Amino acid sequence: MSSLKTVDSIIHARWLIPVEPNDVIYENHALVMQQGKILDILPSAECEQTYQSDDVCQLNTHALIPGLINAHTHAAMNLLKGYADDYQLMHWLEKYIWPAEQKWVSEEFVYDGSSLAFAEMIQSGTTCFADMYFYPEIAAKVAKEIGLRACIGLIVIDFPSAWASSAEEYLDKGLALHDQINEWPLISSMFAPHSTYTVSDAALKKIATLSNELNIPIQTHLHETKLEVEDCLKLHKLRPLQRLENLGLVSSSLIAVHMTEINKDDIKTLANNGVHVVHCPESNLKLASGLCPVAQLQDSNVNVCIGTDGAASNNDLSMIGEMRTTALIGKIVAQSAEALTARTVLEMATINGAKALAIDKLTGSLKIGKAADVVAINLDELANIPVYEPISQLIYTCQNSNVTHVWVNGKILLNNKQLCTINESALKLKAADWQRKISSTIN
Amino acid sequence: MSSLKTVDSIIHARWLIPVEPNDVIYENHALVMQQGKILDILPSAECEQTYQSDDVCQLNTHALIPGLINAHTHAAMNLLKGYADDYQLMHWLEKYIWPAEQKWVSEEFVYDGSSLAFAEMIQSGTTCFADMYFYPEIAAKVAKEIGLRACIGLIVIDFPSAWASSAEEYLDKGLALHDQINEWPLISSMFAPHSTYTVSDAALKKIATLSNELNIPIQTHLHETKLEVEDCLKLHKLRPLQRLENLGLVSSSLIAVHMTEINKDDIKTLANNGVHVVHCPESNLKLASGLCPVAQLQDSNVNVCIGTDGAASNNDLSMIGEMRTTALIGKIVAQSAEALTARTVLEMATINGAKALAIDKLTGSLKIGKAADVVAINLDELANIPVYEPISQLIYTCQNSNVTHVWVNGKILLNNKQLCTINESALKLKAADWQRKISSTIN
Repeated sequence: MSSLKTVDSIIHARWLIPVEPNDVIYENHALVMQQGKILDILPSAECEQTYQSDDVCQLNTHALIPGLINAHTHAAMNLLKGYADDYQLMHWLEKYIWPAEQKWVSEEFVYDGSSLAFAEMIQSGTTCFADMYFYPEIAAKVAKEIGLRACIGLIVIDFPSAWASSAEEYLDKGLALHDQINEWPLISSMFAPHSTYTVSDAALKKIATLSNELNIPIQTHLHETKLEVEDCLKLHKLRPLQRLENLGLVSSSLIAVHMTEINKDDIKTLANNGVHVVHCPESNLKLASGLCPVAQLQDSNVNVCIGTDGAASNNDLSMIGEMRTTALIGKIVAQSAEALTARTVLEMATINGAKALAIDKLTGSLKIGKAADVVAINLDELANIPVYEPISQLIYTCQNSNVTHVWVNGKILLNNKQLCTINESALKLKAADWQRKISSTIN
Repeated sequence: MSSLKTVDSIIHARWLIPVEPNDVIYENHALVMQQGKILDILPSAECEQTYQSDDVCQLNTHALIPGLINAHTHAAMNLLKGYADDYQLMHWLEKYIWPAEQKWVSEEFVYDGSSLAFAEMIQSGTTCFADMYFYPEIAAKVAKEIGLRACIGLIVIDFPSAWASSAEEYLDKGLALHDQINEWPLISSMFAPHSTYTVSDAALKKIATLSNELNIPIQTHLHETKLEVEDCLKLHKLRPLQRLENLGLVSSSLIAVHMTEINKDDIKTLANNGVHVVHCPESNLKLASGLCPVAQLQDSNVNVCIGTDGAASNNDLSMIGEMRTTALIGKIVAQSAEALTARTVLEMATINGAKALAIDKLTGSLKIGKAADVVAINLDELANIPVYEPISQLIYTCQNSNVTHVWVNGKILLNNKQLCTINESALKLKAADWQRKISSTIN
């Protein structure tokens, strides 16, 4: 027995879907974790001859997949989910969302809203997210405490908020936060100018320069609606993407969120500059914003990943559901049932997200040497069987309840559906408190 | 105590959403069941002064809704879910589905496939379904055994199958089945000519006559794709709906499934004749068939309900998920976030389905005197809170796992997520058996 190497954890699973390479599914394999990393992937039988651990997890009806990456959300808005549904975008914002935010957004709001969001993310197999909201230092802190991987948006907007009063102050606070969280192993940052219609040329130019100097990605809402594009054309005689190009923001550091209203020139610009696109299908549908031509973008070699957007316009943060919607809606938009296959969509939700956030060397696939960001999906519920093809069942038949285990950087966050780093009942009390307060806004 | 009336069952719930009337949500109310029917709906406090029962269910964080009605499915195809995904419709049918059906469809296939489907339906809050498949007598028998409400399609198609060899034989067998199941309290029947392109004029005319005489609804796939409409125009110089009109099938007994490719005249025909439409959004998306203009139909007072279609083109039978997709996709098609509100979609999945199947006097809403077809949804998961508006949370944040209890005709089929009338482990073994057999078809 002394010849066996002792390791931190071993997970045996019925299927292991590494995503890289993308045409392989391993059966009856083990994933070996050591010091937060994937040390080995090998047949279970061979594993038993090679490794030993005090922490062995046997998942006989499960598929292991890379942790899902939610490439665009506003986590704290979780407290506003269902607060105002079935309204037009501007009415929704002006009459409900902005007044509620104006009144309630605070450190405490962001702490509790982010906690609730992160719990839902873990329960639905998300191990990493890109966030854009006020008080980003709080979201970063909660993510660190709970153990999620995060890319925290350094928000910039020309409107004053409880967090900052001018674009300069947003930027200054953001840069200070960047310096602080730079040291935290699971947290990175990105500039997050809200949109071209809420941030001035001067601030956008400054962000371009800083992004270049500090090598920080930039995420922004872009071409979310036809109206946004039309307004920009009226005001600037440029489409929003062209405006960003002129200001020096269009590069492989740019992560463009939404991109529903795009033409051939836009696609060329995105492709030629290596811009990443975050597709948020459920938010785009729910707000009737538009439809992103994902297959067309992919045919032009644009990297497209997936985001849920905030829970106020979705209304959930499930990447399991968002993958399914991505596949379904992608086919009708492309007018082909062969577009956006289950396999393609799984890549979008994992490695493509990692590429957009510039952390693909670290995560996004189950590859030896990468971080052990791993999710176990039980495919043995009645709604999932028979299993002819595990990736098909994952994309087309799974729901959050199929997610049983989640590890981030080798640490278990969900163990047999139990949250390990979050006190669920305390969180429910907090949510009930906020519900009482926020309900009073419109009463 | 002697003044209390003894009843079969009492359910106390945090919210009770009756659907009829559609603008009411009762809080802290009780639903009283007696002999399979809803005897009373009243405040819980009042209920305790009025009724007593050995069977009292206390659901403090749940919403009670009418059982969901899946107005179009092919239940037995559950055994083929995930068998062939991401293919174009005709390739999918000709290369995969039809050969597998040719080889495997039998009494046993339909028994096991239907059982698996019904288990999934119950787990996702469906209490009634309309089915179209071979061996309908088997589906009827299984539904009766398990306790689901069903409208069984008397399938007619010009192709021979293991069940029947000609349109006449299909019809004869169907009529015999109709006579038989007419006596069963939870089962009704409908003629189910497969489509205008697979059933001859003669058979369709005969069905029109019989439907009239026997007062049986007719369900058929109609205007599912652009190609179907174009082919019919070439062959008959008529759109499929016009062809049915000429043959005498267009009336309030007609249940038209899909209707993605329709023009203003079609809508007028549907509206003027009281034709019911079954919207199957997920199947339409997955096969890239087209988009049904639901809001437009509703504006013209056409009754639109919801179906999942078969699991081979969905790939689940969840009406919870189908309602969400209906709301999301309905908004983008109508280009308005205000279209297809959560409330409208819940009506589509309940009372509208009952109207289409001509059983709305019996079920489809929580109304005193109707059958006790009731579903309890727990809204206290982290993904559902805060709850500002229960119907919004139901449509936009719920998944199958929120469904905790299901009653049909007063009988409990799902008790705290446990199936009461189905042996789950036996069913899993059957599914595994079929997987082995069916996989061999393409190998």
